[in-house]
Amino acid sequence: MRMVDIIHKKREGGALSEQEIRFWIEGYLQGEIPDYQVSALLMAIVWRGMDAQETALLTRQMAASGEQVDLRFIPGIKVDKHSTGGVGDKTTLIVGPIVAACGVPVAKMSGRGLGHTGGTLDKLEAIPGFQTTVEPERFLQIVRENGLSVIGQTHNIAPADKKLYALRDVTGTVESLPLIASSIMSKKLAAGADAILLDVKTGSGAFMKTLEESCALAQEMVSIGEQNGRRTAALITNMDVPLGYAVGNALEVREAVETLKGGGPQPLQEICLQLAANMLCLAEKGPLPHCLQLARQALESGQALKKLREMVVLQGGDASVIDDPSRLPAAPYTRQVCAANDGFIVRMDTEQCGLVSCILGAGRARKEDAIDYGAGILFSAGYGQRLQAGDPLVTLYTSRPETLQEAERLLQEAITLSPQPPAAEKLLYARVTKEGIESL
Amino acid sequence: MRMVDIIHKKREGGALSEQEIRFWIEGYLQGEIPDYQVSALLMAIVWRGMDAQETALLTRQMAASGEQVDLRFIPGIKVDKHSTGGVGDKTTLIVGPIVAACGVPVAKMSGRGLGHTGGTLDKLEAIPGFQTTVEPERFLQIVRENGLSVIGQTHNIAPADKKLYALRDVTGTVESLPLIASSIMSKKLAAGADAILLDVKTGSGAFMKTLEESCALAQEMVSIGEQNGRRTAALITNMDVPLGYAVGNALEVREAVETLKGGGPQPLQEICLQLAANMLCLAEKGPLPHCLQLARQALESGQALKKLREMVVLQGGDASVIDDPSRLPAAPYTRQVCAANDGFIVRMDTEQCGLVSCILGAGRARKEDAIDYGAGILFSAGYGQRLQAGDPLVTLYTSRPETLQEAERLLQEAITLSPQPPAAEKLLYARVTKEGIESL
Repeated sequence: MRMVDIIHKKREGGALSEQEIRFWIEGYLQGEIPDYQVSALLMAIVWRGMDAQETALLTRQMAASGEQVDLRFIPGIKVDKHSTGGVGDKTTLIVGPIVAACGVPVAKMSGRGLGHTGGTLDKLEAIPGFQTTVEPERFLQIVRENGLSVIGQTHNIAPADKKLYALRDVTGTVESLPLIASSIMSKKLAAGADAILLDVKTGSGAFMKTLEESCALAQEMVSIGEQNGRRTAALITNMDVPLGYAVGNALEVREAVETLKGGGPQPLQEICLQLAANMLCLAEKGPLPHCLQLARQALESGQALKKLREMVVLQGGDASVIDDPSRLPAAPYTRQVCAANDGFIVRMDTEQCGLVSCILGAGRARKEDAIDYGAGILFSAGYGQRLQAGDPLVTLYTSRPETLQEAERLLQEAITLSPQPPAAEKLLYARVTKEGIESL
Repeated sequence: MRMVDIIHKKREGGALSEQEIRFWIEGYLQGEIPDYQVSALLMAIVWRGMDAQETALLTRQMAASGEQVDLRFIPGIKVDKHSTGGVGDKTTLIVGPIVAACGVPVAKMSGRGLGHTGGTLDKLEAIPGFQTTVEPERFLQIVRENGLSVIGQTHNIAPADKKLYALRDVTGTVESLPLIASSIMSKKLAAGADAILLDVKTGSGAFMKTLEESCALAQEMVSIGEQNGRRTAALITNMDVPLGYAVGNALEVREAVETLKGGGPQPLQEICLQLAANMLCLAEKGPLPHCLQLARQALESGQALKKLREMVVLQGGDASVIDDPSRLPAAPYTRQVCAANDGFIVRMDTEQCGLVSCILGAGRARKEDAIDYGAGILFSAGYGQRLQAGDPLVTLYTSRPETLQEAERLLQEAITLSPQPPAAEKLLYARVTKEGIESL
């Protein structure tokens, strides 16, 4: 087999066989196939696409290129969740505990934030002492004991994906649905869960800006999961506005804890219950309405909060911040930004809100950058709310006071107030399963 | 400027600017842009194409990447000729002398054979002592003195094309009209002639198998030449049958000499006169019918033969082989292949005939391979001729008798005899100029 023939085949629009995909991925990871052949193949894939079977095979091959977590010794159906990334997305901190409290084990590997989107690991590390690097045996032990553990992805998960992604980044081959979907799903397959719920964000703060793109990505990922023997479903959720009022690591932990205590913004609670119910459904806990009830009980009874607290304890964190979130890291400088005129909040440029949070210190411009856990933004009002000029709109938090002016300017630019109220906020657009797309 | 942005632009179907093309070609040649980015761009070009202006700019940039021959001190309009490669194509050995004999200087750099096609350099080197590696000053001196010199391409002609071609070869990005056309034309631009005649072969022995493909390539190349200030025209000629009766280096020199002496196969003579007339026309020697007459006179008067003989002398070759071609290298083993049944020759798989010649030792499988100058095939009959079973069809020549059996088998396979005579042989299909395609 020769790589140049594989490139030719794809260039002519052919479908690669399992043998060809294995030859490519194994050869590339072993350094036998050079970057320049792989980048030509990647561009041919951007051009010609890959069919469902090819995409599933590529994903499996990438998952098999490294360590694969074995969750078989944890009883029950293990359900994983993946979010395509958004602004203010602290759902894992709420949904994981709810699902665990309903008796479905959650053994989750999360990622860090990059660009304008946040990452669950960074949020958890805002809790003093919390360890996200945990030995595999200890990870499984915590899941067995508490039903819930969230750790960082180990280095050797899907190394072929890591190498391919780095190449795609510098060769203009990032934007390709099968490549994006297989990259995400390769890590999910390797993470070992029996079922996977995908939270595909859509809107101004998401990587996929339109509903069509989001549904297409969801279908591609559901197809990959199902073809690889994992029950997979996706919810298409709104990221046209930040999720909740808090953006920034400690601020988001606090909002998550408040939500688990029955408070927090209503839309955030609602979306978390929907995500949790869909995970419970994948774990065969019954039909969706029943699962929604289970989730709500777990939240209202305080059982979910207990799961989060216990995970913090087991992973070395200071659980007193769960009891009293005011003990979380706080930024020394704050600035209140007020509404410049009267009107309803009709638009929030969510990507720009995420960038403001980064500028304040909550995110990274490059992988190596350090994070200021206390930094971020906290909205005083949300989408659709009516404000008068001078009413508080948002509070900025930072350790770098020199960033406040630019942050305020960008934030004012990101928010539009209008005399007319906007259309009602939609939380959930659709559910995608192997049966198709169900509008919600 | 960043290479990844250039890749993105082409990926989205945009046209690259002069600055972007220069950044790419200069950066690549200097090793600042890695292979893996260039191969991704090349695949995007295969996909999206390049418009006429981009293609002309790319060609100019590649021509400018190395040495550019300066022919200004040779008086008159210098005309170059390029053939896209065929089987039995010894036209340069005949056409060059005819054109030079008409007073139009020919300073030509030729290539070697590869694959099933032959190369003029290899044919010339079949003449004992003939030097194809000649210092630039000496080359120009010979042209000034004799009006004709054919040498090998110097190492530093269009090095960017050389580097790109090597990459295309291993990344499935060879087949792209603008890339093929710019690769050929970059070397022609650097070779310094004022006008260029392209002999674009079409048919079973050519790289372009169909007339449509050949016309498209011709148009692309004519456009490149004209946009870069060179008068350029192309003839689309038949390569559905081998050109002449001889295939193989010394055999072809002999056939060329016979043709210059007024003999040789009629179709070969005719095509050479047409090519020569079109070159004379580009050199402003008058309208085509007049140029055809000039060419015929040069041939019939023996002036063209004198030019070839003089070039052989000036380039160190043994001119006695021109006077007596039986002194050319001969292969020690021969085998006559006869017609297996009665019939007209209706089909000659010309690529396969070229491969047979290679197997016998006349060509190279790899660049490093040595050539057996005496090896090759000599047809006893041509397309459309009627044979009876047992009539001589072809004689095989080789120094490796072990190849004869396989060569005979493949050759029998390549030739089809049929009770019905075939359509008349067409030599010339079309002339392509900047004005368009003229069917002939």
